[in-house]
Amino acid sequence: MKSPEPVLERIQNQLLALARFSDDARPGWTRQVFTPVYRAERDWMLRQFSEAGLSDVHTDVAGNIVGVLVGRNPLAAPIVIGSHTDTVDGGGRFDGIVGVLGSLEIIRLIRENGMHLYRSLVVMDFLGEEPNNFGIGCLGSRALVGQLKPEDLERKNFEGATLGQAYERFGLDPGAMLGATVRPGSWHSYVELHIEQGSELEKAGKDIGVVTGIAGIQRLLLDFRGRPDHAGTRRMEERSDALVAAAEAVLAIRHETCGAPAGSVGTTTHLISQQDSLNVVPGRVELRGEIRSTSQDWLTTAERRLTAQIRASAAQYGVDVEAMWWPDNEVALADRTIQDVISRSAESLGFSWEAIPSGATHDAAHLSHISPMGMVFVPSQAGRSHCPEEWTDLIDIGRGIQTFFALIQELDRTEITR
Amino acid sequence: MKSPEPVLERIQNQLLALARFSDDARPGWTRQVFTPVYRAERDWMLRQFSEAGLSDVHTDVAGNIVGVLVGRNPLAAPIVIGSHTDTVDGGGRFDGIVGVLGSLEIIRLIRENGMHLYRSLVVMDFLGEEPNNFGIGCLGSRALVGQLKPEDLERKNFEGATLGQAYERFGLDPGAMLGATVRPGSWHSYVELHIEQGSELEKAGKDIGVVTGIAGIQRLLLDFRGRPDHAGTRRMEERSDALVAAAEAVLAIRHETCGAPAGSVGTTTHLISQQDSLNVVPGRVELRGEIRSTSQDWLTTAERRLTAQIRASAAQYGVDVEAMWWPDNEVALADRTIQDVISRSAESLGFSWEAIPSGATHDAAHLSHISPMGMVFVPSQAGRSHCPEEWTDLIDIGRGIQTFFALIQELDRTEITR
Repeated sequence: MKSPEPVLERIQNQLLALARFSDDARPGWTRQVFTPVYRAERDWMLRQFSEAGLSDVHTDVAGNIVGVLVGRNPLAAPIVIGSHTDTVDGGGRFDGIVGVLGSLEIIRLIRENGMHLYRSLVVMDFLGEEPNNFGIGCLGSRALVGQLKPEDLERKNFEGATLGQAYERFGLDPGAMLGATVRPGSWHSYVELHIEQGSELEKAGKDIGVVTGIAGIQRLLLDFRGRPDHAGTRRMEERSDALVAAAEAVLAIRHETCGAPAGSVGTTTHLISQQDSLNVVPGRVELRGEIRSTSQDWLTTAERRLTAQIRASAAQYGVDVEAMWWPDNEVALADRTIQDVISRSAESLGFSWEAIPSGATHDAAHLSHISPMGMVFVPSQAGRSHCPEEWTDLIDIGRGIQTFFALIQELDRTEITR
Repeated sequence: MKSPEPVLERIQNQLLALARFSDDARPGWTRQVFTPVYRAERDWMLRQFSEAGLSDVHTDVAGNIVGVLVGRNPLAAPIVIGSHTDTVDGGGRFDGIVGVLGSLEIIRLIRENGMHLYRSLVVMDFLGEEPNNFGIGCLGSRALVGQLKPEDLERKNFEGATLGQAYERFGLDPGAMLGATVRPGSWHSYVELHIEQGSELEKAGKDIGVVTGIAGIQRLLLDFRGRPDHAGTRRMEERSDALVAAAEAVLAIRHETCGAPAGSVGTTTHLISQQDSLNVVPGRVELRGEIRSTSQDWLTTAERRLTAQIRASAAQYGVDVEAMWWPDNEVALADRTIQDVISRSAESLGFSWEAIPSGATHDAAHLSHISPMGMVFVPSQAGRSHCPEEWTDLIDIGRGIQTFFALIQELDRTEITR
């Protein structure tokens, strides 16, 4: 039997309807976690879950919206699908959203065509996936895998409010949230449809990305301490210029990725000089950066090499540097069986595909701790994301949903062993 | 006749008395132009001018404190001496102050010993020499040479007040100030005693620095425009990372001074990234820097080389850069005759000396436009300046005043042809 096709007009209408929930005071499409506009969108989304035909639609204690399409065997471990619908400040209309709306379209197709899966299908719209002012994203998925700790509730945003207070004001019980963990192995699989946010598919001319893994992120804080001096009277060779040492580090981070495994990147995101008088050689500079890779081995050795190199270079300028590294998330590899099923599904539909790593992180990275995980990517125009220019053609979204639907049907018949 | 020697105890007491005029809310010794503590210090200083025996003590329309020791020929062009008594935020107790208090000590010595110079000796404490929030220092000396323009009165500080308003609130008429210019050639000479603010004298073990010239300053503003991108998904080779391009510029400015004429320096004082989200490749970075040299030729060619090099390097990273250069002050060479008189004066007193350029700028740089100019430097401990650690031993201050006094007596007998 040929699989039913997604109704593109329906998807487009839902994309447009969802885009209306946007903070007017901010650029692009801004719908940040815990804001009133996010609240309004979630109320709307709960209705969409119900109207699509899901049962037991509710917000779980972690703040995720959940709905179930009960399978022929309600006792079998369910297949879980979903994504998120919050956006970054000045963000776009596709990141996360395509995965949630695509999942609802699949529910509609299954019901409209009288199909019955063996396993139950659970759809989730995870709470606050994007980075926020509390410095911790993927709130909803982290909670499910026990990666939110009591001390995280004490994190403060710029206004001094704690994350725990933000949960409470949003109508969630932070204590209950900490107990929301899912027993590992209780899900058959977690699969997610998402825009690529990079330009690999577009450049290769491929319809579908089969995600091999989600990059681990090592974040870096460097504190350079030199000596402030008069910029007119202190000889060059006698200076301890913290900014010069930091500039060497920016270039070291940039060049470290030469010859690294494909998809490895390194970025200095912030350089902050703590002085504002003219005529002064910078004495103190803070650098914030990150390296990402789907190779845990490269992350580990790159961290070691960079620390040594930055220290040695700073010492030559008479500058001390303190380096702090910490993992934002570890490398999360996609399940091999799921990868195979995705590529076979794309092929069966006549779509071209490519195996690619994900440089961006996703709820799937965290959920991989409790479940076999896989992701289907659709192309992003010019690789733009987290900006108003973010765009994926409707036809590409349609192909992604078709592939994702085929994947779900095939997974429903597949045993996965970890 | 052996020249009378300065009374060190008197100098020390005055240094201590002056240091009491300091903003308690700021670190070090802070006495910034237009502040209440500066007002209080200037009232005290007016009394010191009178008590030292100067006549016609007043604040001129440019805000400078002036006093005259009338010479035997009041019609002869006067010798002008002085410096400034404002400090930078968190500054020290010697920069500028040594020149003003040393001048007053010389007036006392002349009067106590019944000496009579041929020329009148004018002592000045110039208004606001140090950098301020309006972005223009040397206010008092600039006004005298016509380097303050009506448009400068519109400069705004961080609070949005204009420089013109600051003059008015300080009891000065900005319109009158603009007309305060001195006719070029009406002064016989301008000489200034100052701490070195560098470490050349200390390292060479010399008592006195004979200043050959004051470095010109070319200031630089670079505006790097790349493209913000997702730091996880955008390939390294496809990025237009404004911060990486700026880091190359920081190093180019640093390395440009290799092989430059002695005393040439280059500094990046500020690097400002205009973004605060995590996970973003910096799209826009502003760099502020400066190069200084007593070689106008080097300044000109270094500016040209740096602009070309920074542009080429940024282009390799796909980053556009707009470069703006402007002179803060031009190279000001000390008068050759005055330099010779200073070195002979030091030698006659048994003090060792060295000819050195001044990397810091001074009121003397501006006054060189209307008068032959010279400067006498005394050692700064470890070259520290513009910080609480700024220090010059009293014995070195004494040697400086003795040399300065001998210089004045010799200048009084010397014709200077420009």
